Amino acid sequence: MTRPIPVSFTAGASGDWHILAIHPVAGPPLAAAARLSVTSGEAPPPGLWTLTGSTSNARYATRAETDGLAARQQGLGRPAATRAALIPITKNPDWWALAQDERRAIFEERSRHTAIGMDYLPAIARRLHHCRELGGPFDFLTWFEFSPEAEPAFDAMLSRLRATEEWRFVAAEVDIRLARD
Amino acid sequence: MTRPIPVSFTAGASGDWHILAIHPVAGPPLAAAARLSVTSGEAPPPGLWTLTGSTSNARYATRAETDGLAARQQGLGRPAATRAALIPITKNPDWWALAQDERRAIFEERSRHTAIGMDYLPAIARRLHHCRELGGPFDFLTWFEFSPEAEPAFDAMLSRLRATEEWRFVAAEVDIRLARD
Repeated sequence: MTRPIPVSFTAGASGDWHILAIHPVAGPPLAAAARLSVTSGEAPPPGLWTLTGSTSNARYATRAETDGLAARQQGLGRPAATRAALIPITKNPDWWALAQDERRAIFEERSRHTAIGMDYLPAIARRLHHCRELGGPFDFLTWFEFSPEAEPAFDAMLSRLRATEEWRFVAAEVDIRLARD
Repeated sequence: MTRPIPVSFTAGASGDWHILAIHPVAGPPLAAAARLSVTSGEAPPPGLWTLTGSTSNARYATRAETDGLAARQQGLGRPAATRAALIPITKNPDWWALAQDERRAIFEERSRHTAIGMDYLPAIARRLHHCRELGGPFDFLTWFEFSPEAEPAFDAMLSRLRATEEWRFVAAEVDIRLARD
């Protein structure tokens, strides 16, 4: 585990990713733009909006779950992974008022968040960025990369996650789909 | 649980708190200064150094522990609490490579971090600020307030904590003592 990596997502006229769609699942939308730029360790370019988060340590996964994920997941930047999704999420105050054991029980024992994600490895690569302590409107920014053929599986994964008890605590969610050449 | 509150601690010539001592327990020291200013929701004043963190949700405490703390703890700003301590801490990469269940087991089942703190309530008031995802040299900034009569008890609490297994993962720690009129 390296130090946290700050990552910014900027929507505007430039960037490696074409924005295909911005769909507000819950809460307010984000402004439409042509492209998305992903930057780390440098100032983000000017744009219509920028969301910034930071990688961090896992907050719920046990050693067994962490090892299971590590054995199956693949990294970002695979040549065949020409589709991506950025999903900013905010959880409601009821979630943040829960104690650690209560959040863990909802997250995994009852909602099977990690177990559901495991079903889609290694096709769906994923990196979570935390931003609750950085200000701004969202608590989490999750970035996913996959091949065009895996997009139906990705949609199925989201449907399963959004049907869980954990998602009752989601106050805002935007689903941004992207493609690169 | 409200939204996270950003808080900055600035050492320099101004501020409500006199700096009595800056003691590097582990790792590099911080520069000596006359006073410390604590600001939130406004730009910190100029100074020799500024450390910024954010309140957040508890990362390890169970519901029973959270309720136990809430029943006994008192808030910051008590008139009799004219002494304070700011203790910035960084944990080493081994700590951050542990899974959630491993960190919890060390933090509480084996090191009794919350249980030790409970022994000093309500005399010692405490607020934890996270800064690992904000950049800067430290992972945590803990602020304590107590009466002058409680300082020996505060020292005893620190001695007990520093003798725990959890503290083997502390790579840097500075103990800053303060007083106000």
